[in-house]
Amino acid sequence: MKHPLPALAAAVCCLATALPAAAQFQKPEDAIKYRHSAMTLQAAHFGRVAAMASGRAPYDAQAAAENASIARTMSTIAFAGFAPGSEKGAPTRAKPDIWTDTAEFKKYADQLQTAMAKLEEVARAGGGADALKGPVGDVGKLCKGCHDDFRNEKLSN
Amino acid sequence: MKHPLPALAAAVCCLATALPAAAQFQKPEDAIKYRHSAMTLQAAHFGRVAAMASGRAPYDAQAAAENASIARTMSTIAFAGFAPGSEKGAPTRAKPDIWTDTAEFKKYADQLQTAMAKLEEVARAGGGADALKGPVGDVGKLCKGCHDDFRNEKLSN
Repeated sequence: MKHPLPALAAAVCCLATALPAAAQFQKPEDAIKYRHSAMTLQAAHFGRVAAMASGRAPYDAQAAAENASIARTMSTIAFAGFAPGSEKGAPTRAKPDIWTDTAEFKKYADQLQTAMAKLEEVARAGGGADALKGPVGDVGKLCKGCHDDFRNEKLSN
Repeated sequence: MKHPLPALAAAVCCLATALPAAAQFQKPEDAIKYRHSAMTLQAAHFGRVAAMASGRAPYDAQAAAENASIARTMSTIAFAGFAPGSEKGAPTRAKPDIWTDTAEFKKYADQLQTAMAKLEEVARAGGGADALKGPVGDVGKLCKGCHDDFRNEKLSN
């Protein structure tokens, strides 16, 4: 890929707020499947950047930028899947607290999106694997923190 | 969202080829989960543009552009999930022909990515719901054609 990704941040940064979440899903299971999909892709692409940061995968500046970009895009759309009314309807690990302690959950969402934006910025700058370590760690802490607080150990219906 | 999305096409157009697919998944089920996720998001976001084109949803130029952009991004990454060795490993509707008649499958992938790029371009131009009809129809035909040829009716393991 020869082109930089300058407008991707602008392109996706407002999706989560621009599209009213509640109106996007006809059934609760649609929202659940949607958020699972976004989380799966987010984890896959973030994981590839994290592997470079930790030395488990060879550093590749272009691949780091592309994967960070996709991961960031997913962080901006995933939260729309936690739509009102989608607490149940298909197997989910989402705790009900997401829909009662929405301010705290929203804080994680905002922090993650900011951390993902930083990671993409650093990845695009192409400063090597070491430069990725801090931003990757910041994202990882937010993943863990939110999962600890808002995700159950096991799926429930 | 106040910014146009000029670089998104450039940002994602080469992902499918830039990242060697076979190296991206540790287990066949990872590839299957990945492609299901990309297909789910592709369908969700393309569906929102299609709903505007058909009059089932009110036309919104910004939302059309954002949704077309995400759908297009998904069309560029989904095919990496049909990695060699991922014919089985988790419930899938993918026909084995995908891995034997790869030229024909690849043709669908290329055509879909071209049609999605056109749809995003038209959506970003903001010409109203009628302008979306042709490009939405083209994408829809490719979805159906590929599903008819390469997707089974039922999941198998």
